[in-house]
Amino acid sequence: MLCLMSLCLSIWAVLMMPGRTSALTAKIDVMVMLPHNNTYLFSSQRVSPAIQYALKPLGRAEFAGLEFSVQYVNSACGMDALYALVDKQRDERPDLLLGPVCEYTAASVVRVASHWNIPVISAGALATGFSLKATEYSHLTRIAPTYLKMAETFQAMFGRFGWRTASLIYDDDKDERNCYFAIEGVFTVLSEYHIATDYAVLNSHEERVDADGIIASVYGSEVVIMCAKADTVRDLMLAAHRRKLTTGSHIFFNIELFNSSSYGDGSWRRGDKYDNEAKAAYSFLNTVTLLRSTKPEFEDFSMEMKKSLQQLDIPVCEGCSAVNMFMEGFHDALILYAIALREVMSNGLTKKDGLEITHRMWNRTFEGIAGQVSLDASGDRNGDFSVVRMTDPEAGTHETVMSYFGTNGSFQIMPGFKREWFSLRTAPEPPHLKHSDPSSGGLGVSAVTGIIVGGILGTALLLAFYFFRKNYRITIERRTPREECDIGKHRQLREDSIRSNFSAA
Amino acid sequence: MLCLMSLCLSIWAVLMMPGRTSALTAKIDVMVMLPHNNTYLFSSQRVSPAIQYALKPLGRAEFAGLEFSVQYVNSACGMDALYALVDKQRDERPDLLLGPVCEYTAASVVRVASHWNIPVISAGALATGFSLKATEYSHLTRIAPTYLKMAETFQAMFGRFGWRTASLIYDDDKDERNCYFAIEGVFTVLSEYHIATDYAVLNSHEERVDADGIIASVYGSEVVIMCAKADTVRDLMLAAHRRKLTTGSHIFFNIELFNSSSYGDGSWRRGDKYDNEAKAAYSFLNTVTLLRSTKPEFEDFSMEMKKSLQQLDIPVCEGCSAVNMFMEGFHDALILYAIALREVMSNGLTKKDGLEITHRMWNRTFEGIAGQVSLDASGDRNGDFSVVRMTDPEAGTHETVMSYFGTNGSFQIMPGFKREWFSLRTAPEPPHLKHSDPSSGGLGVSAVTGIIVGGILGTALLLAFYFFRKNYRITIERRTPREECDIGKHRQLREDSIRSNFSAA
Repeated sequence: MLCLMSLCLSIWAVLMMPGRTSALTAKIDVMVMLPHNNTYLFSSQRVSPAIQYALKPLGRAEFAGLEFSVQYVNSACGMDALYALVDKQRDERPDLLLGPVCEYTAASVVRVASHWNIPVISAGALATGFSLKATEYSHLTRIAPTYLKMAETFQAMFGRFGWRTASLIYDDDKDERNCYFAIEGVFTVLSEYHIATDYAVLNSHEERVDADGIIASVYGSEVVIMCAKADTVRDLMLAAHRRKLTTGSHIFFNIELFNSSSYGDGSWRRGDKYDNEAKAAYSFLNTVTLLRSTKPEFEDFSMEMKKSLQQLDIPVCEGCSAVNMFMEGFHDALILYAIALREVMSNGLTKKDGLEITHRMWNRTFEGIAGQVSLDASGDRNGDFSVVRMTDPEAGTHETVMSYFGTNGSFQIMPGFKREWFSLRTAPEPPHLKHSDPSSGGLGVSAVTGIIVGGILGTALLLAFYFFRKNYRITIERRTPREECDIGKHRQLREDSIRSNFSAA
Repeated sequence: MLCLMSLCLSIWAVLMMPGRTSALTAKIDVMVMLPHNNTYLFSSQRVSPAIQYALKPLGRAEFAGLEFSVQYVNSACGMDALYALVDKQRDERPDLLLGPVCEYTAASVVRVASHWNIPVISAGALATGFSLKATEYSHLTRIAPTYLKMAETFQAMFGRFGWRTASLIYDDDKDERNCYFAIEGVFTVLSEYHIATDYAVLNSHEERVDADGIIASVYGSEVVIMCAKADTVRDLMLAAHRRKLTTGSHIFFNIELFNSSSYGDGSWRRGDKYDNEAKAAYSFLNTVTLLRSTKPEFEDFSMEMKKSLQQLDIPVCEGCSAVNMFMEGFHDALILYAIALREVMSNGLTKKDGLEITHRMWNRTFEGIAGQVSLDASGDRNGDFSVVRMTDPEAGTHETVMSYFGTNGSFQIMPGFKREWFSLRTAPEPPHLKHSDPSSGGLGVSAVTGIIVGGILGTALLLAFYFFRKNYRITIERRTPREECDIGKHRQLREDSIRSNFSAA
């Protein structure tokens, strides 16, 4: 019996061996980890037409012999993707993972996949923590420009225009935390560049946003960089305009994530009584967004995607592109994988040589659906970004005024560009500066007046010391029981694990 | 061939079936996830003698028929434990996990184990995030008192003595982060109790600790609670004593984690020139620590542990207990599991009914090696804690002055206790109050003097506004490029995953 069993097992093992993938034919098991919920821009239904589109040419010509079998796993921002992966027995493990997009989900999945020598390509997992690929994230290739790459656009502008200080304002939803991770990237890059940064965090999901209070905190910074929901950006710009911070003492930026209008995209119109004021305020706002492509092949792709989405009853806005960066990214992911796999196999290796395939994808430029895609030496895509600005303050229309190309770090200046938009005419003032004038010499000589002024100022100083704590080097914050805060439950509950090998024990 | 293979597989499947565990005999595969590195208090070598000690009675009497096979997996605070677990094929999965202790490691492991219906018992994983066991941590039983349980001691004291405000000072090493998670527990409990809390964070690993600067921030709080390395606690107490905060306006607490002297344990002596001053300062310090047991059986256990550790060349300090809470905890873990398993099996279920076994362990009191062990309804051990205080200021010796029993929320007051130690004689003052005296009326009548004072104060006010930002509701912090901070790399790299189902998508 034992003998028979071992015979069976050996035959079975031989059948299952990677060696079965001979020469240039291979059946590739692809596990796609995306949410079923269509409220996500990267839902399975949205992305699957792009993946199908990519598979068409992969059966032909130079890729003949590669047969892709795609399995979709429901992966929102929770742990289901991890569970689906760890439930795979050794012989059932996929050859390629596409996704997950959410950072927290991706962290767990990429760790296990890397440990199992499975390549992972994601158009998400954009956070800075994934950049260190020495150990835990060794098999991760990021096919969409990461937040660090986006942040390089800011670094280049700071260098070009000579700005020195920045206020970072972001909406932390404590769930996907896209703005939080985006601003983390900006902070990381600007810090390396020795730009002093303040930050203000808000949570539009849980509390009314005190736009004026936040804007009151940016006085000392030359550049204000916001990442928030479109309506919050509008509130912030209105507050800044009312406080006259748009008069040349500050430069305002807004990060439009994922080419998605749900993050501020420069559109000021809401049909409310503030529209005119907002239009005026937005004439001082610059929006950083992914560079949009105009390649002819992309139009075909875009048309087909639109058709597919409409068939699936997924609403597509009129006049705007049906293709988001996730659809584009996962399309290109398959192309990139096929190129790398073919090379690896022509060297006598197989689809199971995950690390080798991964490294073949890195440090490579290839033709994606929307144009050239260039991956850096650690497998992160170089990004091209546009700066969009209102060019007609009357009509309130905006257009791209400059573009930044991550591959070579160059700027392209567009006809609509005006140098003055990016020049500080006056230095940012510390707040309430005028209070110092009367006390420093503008008084009469009456002793009583002097003492009264001294007394008032002394009391104010006392109150200032009492309420405004020293906040340099030692972080001290006053809390009230109900207040949502750093040390509070929500934040701590989510601590862990996009951790690098540096921070690991 | 196919037929033969499936026959083989069926026979093999039958052999492997849980049903094989008949009646009250079972072979239990235990996977112990602890670090090999002996610098950890919970290293394999330290804890394994305790596990062996527990296994002895488990082969006999009411547990006859249970056979434990223990496998040790090296699990420091990284991801090795997760990898070891996910590498197990379906039929190789252990029946019980002991450990991991480190929070970040435990988060990943407990998720997968819960998904696989494997009970996990740990003397670690003490962070607040693990308390919500509805989904991700459903199979986790915590056999050592968690940080929340420790924090209940503080809540009870705040209630008893009528304190209203607290400053929390903690050392965040950004690795294991024990103090960070301990203070998170205190914050969570005190917040629910509507105690207003400040906090100050330091990192003794990466920077010189500005003890005086930190103490300068606690003026407004009645109670100061510290969790830090013993030397840092001493520096803080010296600073507080020099600033005369020990004169009845503040109550000082220090959390001694894990009964380990590496966290402040009330010992002030260092043999340096500050010893006398430190002795005086420490006469105002209360240390909260796990209640030490004195049960006779514990002495045998303790002696045997000491012997085992000495055989393994692990240093054991003279005169102190060789048993730490991890050794005690993992010992009791096996006893608890055996009790629950026996019950489950006598109901016709098997060792594979992980959730059933887990729930049998919860809401239960049993006799542990050091005394009664009581687990609450969600499988977290109720804790008993001591408050230790210097009772002889001349000799500088300290003893337990009161004990708190978590099971019934009662205090036991010891003979050495003095009520005045826990009473505020004066209200905490805002800092620098004296600055207001001269300016509010103590000046002469000279106009020039008045103006000069006014001018100086005006400038000071200006500087105060400029450097000390509004820090209430909106979190704004000034950063310099080199500064390690909240939004900085280290912290973000470790974000994720001790997240509750509340915060999950």
